[in-house]
Amino acid sequence: MPRTLITLTTDFGLTDHFVGAMKGVISATSPLAHTVDISHCLQKFDILEAAFFVGEFWKCWPKKTIHVVVVDPGVGSSRRPILLEADGQFFLGPDNGVFTFVMKDAKKFITRELTNDKYFHKPVSRTFHARDIFAPVAAHLAKGVKPMLLGAKIGDALRLAIPQPERTSRRTFTGTILKIDHFGNLITNFKATDFGAIQTSPFEMSVGLKTVRHLALHYAECDLDELFVIEGSSGYLEVCLNQDSAAGKLGCSSGAPVELTLF
Amino acid sequence: MPRTLITLTTDFGLTDHFVGAMKGVISATSPLAHTVDISHCLQKFDILEAAFFVGEFWKCWPKKTIHVVVVDPGVGSSRRPILLEADGQFFLGPDNGVFTFVMKDAKKFITRELTNDKYFHKPVSRTFHARDIFAPVAAHLAKGVKPMLLGAKIGDALRLAIPQPERTSRRTFTGTILKIDHFGNLITNFKATDFGAIQTSPFEMSVGLKTVRHLALHYAECDLDELFVIEGSSGYLEVCLNQDSAAGKLGCSSGAPVELTLF
Amino acid sequence: MPRTLITLTTDFGLTDHFVGAMKGVISATSPLAHTVDISHCLQKFDILEAAFFVGEFWKCWPKKTIHVVVVDPGVGSSRRPILLEADGQFFLGPDNGVFTFVMKDAKKFITRELTNDKYFHKPVSRTFHARDIFAPVAAHLAKGVKPMLLGAKIGDALRLAIPQPERTSRRTFTGTILKIDHFGNLITNFKATDFGAIQTSPFEMSVGLKTVRHLALHYAECDLDELFVIEGSSGYLEVCLNQDSAAGKLGCSSGAPVELTLF
Repeated sequence: MPRTLITLTTDFGLTDHFVGAMKGVISATSPLAHTVDISHCLQKFDILEAAFFVGEFWKCWPKKTIHVVVVDPGVGSSRRPILLEADGQFFLGPDNGVFTFVMKDAKKFITRELTNDKYFHKPVSRTFHARDIFAPVAAHLAKGVKPMLLGAKIGDALRLAIPQPERTSRRTFTGTILKIDHFGNLITNFKATDFGAIQTSPFEMSVGLKTVRHLALHYAECDLDELFVIEGSSGYLEVCLNQDSAAGKLGCSSGAPVELTLF
Repeated sequence: MPRTLITLTTDFGLTDHFVGAMKGVISATSPLAHTVDISHCLQKFDILEAAFFVGEFWKCWPKKTIHVVVVDPGVGSSRRPILLEADGQFFLGPDNGVFTFVMKDAKKFITRELTNDKYFHKPVSRTFHARDIFAPVAAHLAKGVKPMLLGAKIGDALRLAIPQPERTSRRTFTGTILKIDHFGNLITNFKATDFGAIQTSPFEMSVGLKTVRHLALHYAECDLDELFVIEGSSGYLEVCLNQDSAAGKLGCSSGAPVELTLF
Repeated sequence: MPRTLITLTTDFGLTDHFVGAMKGVISATSPLAHTVDISHCLQKFDILEAAFFVGEFWKCWPKKTIHVVVVDPGVGSSRRPILLEADGQFFLGPDNGVFTFVMKDAKKFITRELTNDKYFHKPVSRTFHARDIFAPVAAHLAKGVKPMLLGAKIGDALRLAIPQPERTSRRTFTGTILKIDHFGNLITNFKATDFGAIQTSPFEMSVGLKTVRHLALHYAECDLDELFVIEGSSGYLEVCLNQDSAAGKLGCSSGAPVELTLF
C-alpha cells in the first residue's frame, strides 16, 4: 500500500525552524505519512500569488494527496482554518482565498471549517497554525480520520477575484501580469486557448515600454536579445527572452498591465 | 514498520553538491532510511544560531528520529564528532555547542565521541565530515547499529553560554535579540512565562530607537505600520509588524540589545 | 524491497510550481517511487556548472537510482531528451552535455534517445519537458519499464570540453576556477593527485591579484584573514579563507584563470 502523501507549500522561507517543526508534528502523528516539499519560498503574505501557484501544480497529483498550504497573514485572527476536498484531493489552509484557483477548476468540491481541536497540536499558538492545526490535521487525515470528524461543511469559503482580460476596443484587450517566474518570464492572464488568433494572424503585445510581435514555439529559436511571446506550459501567453530575464529588461513586476492587439 | 527518519540541518546552502552527496551516502548505506530536509540555509558558521534553531524543532519529532546537524567551521580540526542521545532521539554533529539547547531542555541525555571508523565513508576527507562521518553513521544507526559501538561516552561535550536577560534595576531588564526570522520578527530572549506581567500591566520594550508598548495576540489585529510585542510560537516575546519586517524598520540584527521595563 | 529513488536536480528555483508539478507527475505515475531533492538552485542555463555538479554527487548513490537533471535552455528545440545508464545508475535529461562528467568517470555507459511518447505526460508542452518527459519517464523506469522500450541507443550524446590545466613553462601551469561554492571557496581544476608535489615542496598559486603559498589540512588551522590552498573534498585544489569568502576577497568568479608554480 502506498504511503500517504502530504505536500507542503508555504511562505516560511528556509532560514527558520518552522518547516522542521511542521514535518516533525506530521511524523510524530502519522509515521507512515510522507511529506514532500513543494516550496517554502512563496512571496510573503501574497495570497493571490499563492492561489495561482497552487492552481498550477495540484492537478499533477494523484487522488488522496493531502496539500498543506500556508500563506496566512491573518493567522490567529477570526479567519477560519479549512479543509477543501476537490476532485479526490485534500487541501488544508487558511480561509483567505488561497484555494481560489483550485475551487475554480475542480469538477466538484466541499469545504469544511476545522473546528475539532481533538486533532490539533496543543497548546495551539496564536501565530503558528501550520504547526498546531494544519500539520497535525493533515497527519490525522493521512491516518484515516474521516473529514466529517474535522468540522462541519461551510458554503462560503473565501474566493479571490481573479483578474481577467478586458476587451477595450474591437481589436484590443487589456490584461495583466499574473506572475514573474524564476527565469524572468512574464506570465500574462491571457489564456492561449482564448487568444488562438495569434497563432495565425499578426498581433502586438505591449508591456512596459516595449511591443512584442513575435510568437515563438520554444525559447532557443530566438536571438538572445529578442523579446517574444510563447504559449507557456501553464496555458497562458508569456513574454520571454532566450536565456535572460524579460522582466529585468522590461522593468516589470506582477500586476503590470499588458495590452494585446489582434490584427 | 515505519522507516527510520534522518533529518538534515546544515549551512551548506542550495547551490552545491554537498547535500546530494550526504543523501546519496545515506541511501547507499541504509536503503530504508528516509532523509528529510529541515534547512540547508542556516547562517554560515553561526553555531549559536544553529543551536537555537535545533532547539526549536527537535521536540516536535518522534522518538528514534536521527538528526544530523552540520554547522561546522572547525571541520577537520581537533573538534570531536559526537552522537547525542536525548529523550529517545539521536543527534549527530560536531562537538562545538550546536546541541546546547537540546542538552538544556532534554530530561536526560548521553553523549559519545564518534571514534569507530568502521562506520565512516572512506577515505575520510578533512573538510567534508557531513558526507564521510555524520551521514554514514546516521545511516548505520538507522540500520540498527548500537550507539555503544560508535564510540565511548564523554561527559564534557561543549555547551555554549545562552544569553539570559539581566535585571538592571527594580523595573528594568536587559535582554537581546536571539534571532530575526524570515518575516523580520525580532525574537528576544525574554521568555513569555518569565515576564507574564506584561499580559496585565503596562510595559515598555525598547529596541533600536523605538519603544513598543502594545501587546498583541496575533499579527492581523495591528495597523500595518505599528510595532507591537507578541508572545511568539517559541515561547519568547517577539517584536513584530503586521505584514512587514520589524527588523527592517528598526535596523536591528541578532545580538542587538533589548530593554524591558515593567510598570 | 526498498522503494525506488528518483533524485531531482534543476535550475528551476524555489518560487515556481515547476518542482511541485514534476513531483506530482512522478507520484501519480509511480506511487512507490520516492523523490529526493538534490538542488533546484543551479545557476540558470549554465550547463557546464550543472555537469560538474552532477559529477560530484552521483557516485555516492546506490545502483538503480534514477537521477533527473534539468538545466535545459534548449527545451523544445531539436536537442534530444536522453536516458544515460552509467555503472548501474540511470540519468534522464537533455542531450546538451549535462552528463559530461558522469560519462567521463563511469566505467561503462549506454545512452538512449527518449522517443517513445507512450511514457510521456500529455499534451507534451514545448517548454516544460521536466514535467512532460523526464518526470514521467523516470516514474515509469521506477515501475520497472525496460530502458529498451524508451528509445533506441545512440552513440553521439553531446559531451562538453572540460577545461584542463595547461603547462605553460617548466615550473608553471595555468588552470581555471571550475566553481565557487556556497562558502566562497574557489574550486580549481587542478586535481590534487596530479599536483601532489605541493604537499612536500614550496609552491605559489596566483589568482586575482593575490598569490597563495600556504597549504592547509583544514579550514580552522588558518588565521581568519589568510588565504590558503586546501585539498578539497572533491579532489581538486581549492583556494579558501577560514570562515569567510575567498571569492569575495579576491573578486573572482568561476572561469577565472589560476596560475600554479612548483619550485
